[in-house]
Amino acid sequence: MEITIVGAGLVGCLLACFLARRGHRVVLYERRQDPREQGADRGRSINLAISERGIDALRRLGLDGGVLDAALPMAGRMMHAPDGARTFQPYSADRAQAINSIGRAELNRELLNAATSLHGVEVRFGRRLTAVDERSGRLEFAADGSQDVVADKAQVIIGADGAYSAVRARLQQLPGVSFSQDYLDYGYKELSIPARHGRFAMDPGALHIWPRGRSMMIALPNPDRSFTCTLFWPHDTLAALDTPGKIRAYFAEHYRDAFGLMPDLVGAYQGNPVGHLVTMRCSPWHVTTEATTIGLVGDAAHAIVPFYGQGANCGFEDCVELDRCLDEVGDDFPRALELFERRRADTDVIAGLALENFVEMRDRVGSRMFLAGKRVEHALERVLPGYVSRYELISFSSTPYTEVQRRVARQRRWAAAGAGAALLAALGYAARRRGLVRTRDGG
Amino acid sequence: MEITIVGAGLVGCLLACFLARRGHRVVLYERRQDPREQGADRGRSINLAISERGIDALRRLGLDGGVLDAALPMAGRMMHAPDGARTFQPYSADRAQAINSIGRAELNRELLNAATSLHGVEVRFGRRLTAVDERSGRLEFAADGSQDVVADKAQVIIGADGAYSAVRARLQQLPGVSFSQDYLDYGYKELSIPARHGRFAMDPGALHIWPRGRSMMIALPNPDRSFTCTLFWPHDTLAALDTPGKIRAYFAEHYRDAFGLMPDLVGAYQGNPVGHLVTMRCSPWHVTTEATTIGLVGDAAHAIVPFYGQGANCGFEDCVELDRCLDEVGDDFPRALELFERRRADTDVIAGLALENFVEMRDRVGSRMFLAGKRVEHALERVLPGYVSRYELISFSSTPYTEVQRRVARQRRWAAAGAGAALLAALGYAARRRGLVRTRDGG
Repeated sequence: MEITIVGAGLVGCLLACFLARRGHRVVLYERRQDPREQGADRGRSINLAISERGIDALRRLGLDGGVLDAALPMAGRMMHAPDGARTFQPYSADRAQAINSIGRAELNRELLNAATSLHGVEVRFGRRLTAVDERSGRLEFAADGSQDVVADKAQVIIGADGAYSAVRARLQQLPGVSFSQDYLDYGYKELSIPARHGRFAMDPGALHIWPRGRSMMIALPNPDRSFTCTLFWPHDTLAALDTPGKIRAYFAEHYRDAFGLMPDLVGAYQGNPVGHLVTMRCSPWHVTTEATTIGLVGDAAHAIVPFYGQGANCGFEDCVELDRCLDEVGDDFPRALELFERRRADTDVIAGLALENFVEMRDRVGSRMFLAGKRVEHALERVLPGYVSRYELISFSSTPYTEVQRRVARQRRWAAAGAGAALLAALGYAARRRGLVRTRDGG
Repeated sequence: MEITIVGAGLVGCLLACFLARRGHRVVLYERRQDPREQGADRGRSINLAISERGIDALRRLGLDGGVLDAALPMAGRMMHAPDGARTFQPYSADRAQAINSIGRAELNRELLNAATSLHGVEVRFGRRLTAVDERSGRLEFAADGSQDVVADKAQVIIGADGAYSAVRARLQQLPGVSFSQDYLDYGYKELSIPARHGRFAMDPGALHIWPRGRSMMIALPNPDRSFTCTLFWPHDTLAALDTPGKIRAYFAEHYRDAFGLMPDLVGAYQGNPVGHLVTMRCSPWHVTTEATTIGLVGDAAHAIVPFYGQGANCGFEDCVELDRCLDEVGDDFPRALELFERRRADTDVIAGLALENFVEMRDRVGSRMFLAGKRVEHALERVLPGYVSRYELISFSSTPYTEVQRRVARQRRWAAAGAGAALLAALGYAARRRGLVRTRDGG
């Protein structure tokens, strides 16, 4: 049948590939012009870190090779202390696992090519959704650069149109649709560390972090040997640096080693916009009437903050899960979208972990306690069969997020019990040595 | 100065009175036609229970007498068991305190009369807000029954336009404005118990409750000697009764005593719409630009479910608090609306209590444990100086909601400590009698 997807971003394009493989016709409507014919949208998007969940989804369509070729593996975190000292911390116990840095625009172009190369997929660019009526299935779009209204009618409408989804905006107006948007008091701003003498200015095999307590900067490598840096700062700090002098002085003090690598710091700081960090939840994600069924996937369904590097990975996994739901019900879309609601338990978990990880990244990763804890955790992984850290289960497996939560909770109980038993054994040993306890043998 | 209020409902009208008293000009825009020229909106609104917070606000404007004259005092709950047995439970230890039943439409007419009788207040009916621009202060309204657009410009805009506020809809689009709407899986539907032989069919001095575990019905008296009944049922139960036979059989089984008092049960059940129960939160409630400042009050700022009878009372208290903020900053509206944000701590508390009270009303008020607990609580109130139940502090005082929470938590700690001390004393006495403990005297 024919499926209308609103939004030809990462998740919309990938879902189109899955649906075309199932034999459906797919029409994608996209607000922007074709990004393959334009320059990238610089200064507006965090680099992505594609990890196992995203790769697994791409692999099912044979797209993993091409995407990973364009990406740079990062096998750990490189922490930058205020004095410029660096500490590398591998993501996995065996140091073999990596997350993969790729630009959002580059990945989108790859996925657009993949979708449009498939039979039955069509993308209509420059069409901004202005109205969707669940009673009739009618959609209205404003055509780019004109007053024209383009109308369409669809039996299945999927909103893959991002955190500020126009499809969801309609669902939110329906009684019974619960929704929340929660903003952090933090903004983000992109900066850049260009290549030096044709080479990377820092180690390209790591995700660089400057943890500074209340705020932080991160940097991810690009194929052109630059790094895209992103500040995550409280809005008041971002606004306070309102002169070139203040900007330079602040970076020289707090980001000393990076400051020397940013020749265009002031221009980028003053020119690039401040982005917002929001978590969005919606329930249900779909509505079905006699005329149509409307569903949401990706950020439109569950926008999360970027601190676990899981936004795109989670959206890609949505496509795998929706594909699985369609398998279960023989491509009955209303029933498949009903089944797909079960995924909210997983997306709620990663939404919470992403918020928690912000505190970890900006504050705790810089502490000795945290580094020591990570070393203990990696030691446990080498010693205890089956012990895997939460970060690894999230980033290097496709174990459902809810199952990761349960497993980590179990592991922590075991570790606590083991530590307790070890402590008791040690106390018992000490007591026996001092003759304070009469054992059966000795008594 | 001139203040534009969107919405001439209960809170909009009351706020207009407060602002006019401060010497401001007030223009109110209202979507509906003048309700004083029309019949009431039957079957669409729960009766209100005005209690101390609402009365306190009205008293400050000399409006309490007129409103209370039109209301019926309810001094307690009357529980109706499935077998028809009734149990009365007073709201206060001294049985003297009452909440006051009044129809929303009647109260709105009273407040419209109060507002329009004041110098400088004007109400423009039949104007539905379609756009508000915080950058310019421009408002656009659709005029009732025509295609005309009426525009206005304002330096201060207050959204008092209810749970589905059009003013808040604009704020929600601004980055940094957090918002949530949470629906219960319950709907409500109004029914009626008419007067019998010119008299009330039940005791008009009580709020009647039929607690039925997962669901309930309530009834509040009206001056015409009828009762307005409201079902709070899971949506699936409401939908399941789809024939006159099923409706009659269900009520005969579960609401036996009321069933005999509802001659038009089937007509009302089939004719009246199903309402939704939603909690809405928004933060911040205001935005200030160079051109204008926009704020929210009442349900537009914090819609709550009706189970503590506090929605209107809380909205009226908003007006008192905003008036106090204006006092503090000499009628500087941007600063006053900034100060008014502190009220969210209180409205969050009552939002949570209203949700909790649904469980109490539909389930626990029918149990013997609950009734015994209430008797103990009222006994404590008579015995312990200063001990007042939460229900009384919420309904019969104007202690801030947050302070009520703290005080109730303190009281419960004291009561637990007292019970513990009593238990210890009793154990000590028993032990001494059995000679198990040597006291200093005896040793």
